[in-house]
Amino acid sequence: MIHPLAAAIDLGGTNTALGLVDRKGKILARKNLDTTAFHTVIDFVEVIGQDLEDLYGPYRKNYTLSGIGVGAPNGNYYKGTIENAPNLPWKGIVPLADWLRKKTAQPVYLTNDANAAALGEKLFGAARDLNDFIFITLGTGLGSGFFCHGQLIHGHSGFAGELGHVIVMPHGRSCGCGRRGCLEQYCSGPGLIQTYLDIHKSEGRNTGLQPLSAKEIYEKALAGDETAFYAFQYTAELLGLALANAAAITNPEAIFLSGGLTEAGELLMNPLVISFENNLLNILQGKTSIEFSKLPVNDAALLGAASLVWEKN
Amino acid sequence: MIHPLAAAIDLGGTNTALGLVDRKGKILARKNLDTTAFHTVIDFVEVIGQDLEDLYGPYRKNYTLSGIGVGAPNGNYYKGTIENAPNLPWKGIVPLADWLRKKTAQPVYLTNDANAAALGEKLFGAARDLNDFIFITLGTGLGSGFFCHGQLIHGHSGFAGELGHVIVMPHGRSCGCGRRGCLEQYCSGPGLIQTYLDIHKSEGRNTGLQPLSAKEIYEKALAGDETAFYAFQYTAELLGLALANAAAITNPEAIFLSGGLTEAGELLMNPLVISFENNLLNILQGKTSIEFSKLPVNDAALLGAASLVWEKN
Repeated sequence: MIHPLAAAIDLGGTNTALGLVDRKGKILARKNLDTTAFHTVIDFVEVIGQDLEDLYGPYRKNYTLSGIGVGAPNGNYYKGTIENAPNLPWKGIVPLADWLRKKTAQPVYLTNDANAAALGEKLFGAARDLNDFIFITLGTGLGSGFFCHGQLIHGHSGFAGELGHVIVMPHGRSCGCGRRGCLEQYCSGPGLIQTYLDIHKSEGRNTGLQPLSAKEIYEKALAGDETAFYAFQYTAELLGLALANAAAITNPEAIFLSGGLTEAGELLMNPLVISFENNLLNILQGKTSIEFSKLPVNDAALLGAASLVWEKN
Repeated sequence: MIHPLAAAIDLGGTNTALGLVDRKGKILARKNLDTTAFHTVIDFVEVIGQDLEDLYGPYRKNYTLSGIGVGAPNGNYYKGTIENAPNLPWKGIVPLADWLRKKTAQPVYLTNDANAAALGEKLFGAARDLNDFIFITLGTGLGSGFFCHGQLIHGHSGFAGELGHVIVMPHGRSCGCGRRGCLEQYCSGPGLIQTYLDIHKSEGRNTGLQPLSAKEIYEKALAGDETAFYAFQYTAELLGLALANAAAITNPEAIFLSGGLTEAGELLMNPLVISFENNLLNILQGKTSIEFSKLPVNDAALLGAASLVWEKN
C-alpha cells in the first residue's frame, strides 16, 4: 500500500530544515542547510528541489508526495510569497511558493513560520482537541498563531498573528520592523539578553561584562544571580501583560509556548502565570491556561510546515 | 404573504430599547424603557415580554416572529447569560435568554452588545462585503467585535472582543472591571472628559471648572480651546496605538467606529488615522482603513440585536 507523505521546509534566517513527514507526524527523513549560503532565491530553490528529491528517493516505493509545506518569516498564506523579511538574505517580495511549484511540480503551501507551528500543535501536539488557542514561539523573535473557532486566523492580507510586533513600550527598543517598543524586543532570546545588560547598566556595573547567551543567563539565575533572575522576571511580566491583552481580544482556552526560551521552564513560567492572571479581565480569570508546547523543539517547525499539507489533503 | 420578523432588545445600563426589525434591516416599531426601574430580572422579563407582545400586535397579520435577539453588556453567546456586568442593576450571572424564552416561547439569541452591533454592521452596514474587520463602539465604554474569515469571534467562553479592557496604562485610571489602565478609561466619552480634566489640573487650572459633557468638550475644541483640542488628540493617539496593536493580531481589512464619540467626526478621525498608521506594522501599512459605521447611531444597537436572529434564520 502507498502512503501519503508531506515535504516540509522550515525556512529561517540562518538555518533551513527540510523533512519528510507522514500523516501521523512522524519525521521520516530530514536535512539542514545554511540559508545564508544562498545569495539568490533561485539558487535556493534549485538546491532545495534537488535535496527533497534525494530525501524522497528511498521512500518512493511506499510513499507518494502530497505536497510541500513551507513555514517562513513574513510568509503570506494567500500569495505564497515572503514579504520584506528583515532576517532573510533576499529582499522585497519573494514568490517562493510559485518557484518551488515550478521546480518540483508539487502543490506548495506557504505561511508564516509561527502560524505553521500553531497548525502543527493543532494537528500533532497539545492543541489537538482545542478550537480556540494562541500559540507563541519565543526564539530569536516572538512569533504567534491564533486559532479561533477551530480555524487558524490568516487575516485579510495573510499577515494575522504578529503578536511580536504589538507595541508594548512606545519609544522603547528599536525593532527590525523599523518601529520601536515591539514585544519581541523584550520577550525573546535577544530581548532577555538586552534586559540583562540594561539592568547591569542601570546598576552602574556596565564594565567588563562579556557577551552572554540566553542559556548562560538562565544558568546564572539558577546559580542565584539576582540580575539574571530579575531579567527573567521582567520578561515574564511583560509577556504576561501582552498575553492577557491578546486573551481579551480572542478569549482562548489555552496559550501554548514554544521555542528556545521555553527551556527556562519554571523560571519563565512561574512569574508569567502570575502576571497573566493579574492582568487578565475578571470574566476570563481562571479559565485560560498557559502551557508549554507538547512538540519537541527540534521537530515543531517541520511538523508545522507539514501540517500545511495535511490540512489540505 | 407572511414575512419573518425579528424582535430586538438592546439592554443598556440606563436605557433599554426594544424593536421589531425585518430582514432588510427596517425597524418597524420600537420602544424605550428605563433599565434602572427594574430591581429584579424577573420584573424586567415580565414587562419586556408584554411590551414585545404589544409591539407585535399590529404586525401579527403580515409577519411571523423568528426569534428574539438581545445585545447586552457582558453577554455570553454560548450560555445566553449576562455575567457580572458592572453597569447593570442585577448582579452575578443572569440567565436572561432562558427566562425570556420561557416567558415568550420564542428562540432567544444573546451576545455582548458590541458583538451584536458588529454583526449589524456586517448584515446591514458598511461591512456587508468584508470578511475581516474590527467594529468599535465609543460611548460610555469602549466595546468591540472582531470578524475573522467571515465569522464573528465569540472565543472559548463567549467573551471575545473585549478590546475596551486591554490594559494600555499599567497603574493607570481605575476601571469598573476592578483593574487599572483599561483602554475604555481613556477612549470613551467619560475617558475624554477625564483627560480634559487631567490636562486642566496639570496646568494648575483645577479651580472653578464645571462638570462638562463630551459634547461640550467637542464644542470647545471647535471654538479654539486648546485643552479641548488636545484632549481629543490624546484620546485619538491612544486609540490609534491600540487599534494598530489589534490589527497586528487579526489583520483586518477595515476598522469601523460607532457610538456617541464618533459624532466628533474629523476632530477624532484625523489624529486617529495618523496615530494608527504611525503605529502599524510596516507590512500592514496602507492596507487597513478606519471608517465611521454606516448605521445611524440610534439604530445600530437594535439592528445588531436583530442580526443575531437573522444570522440563524
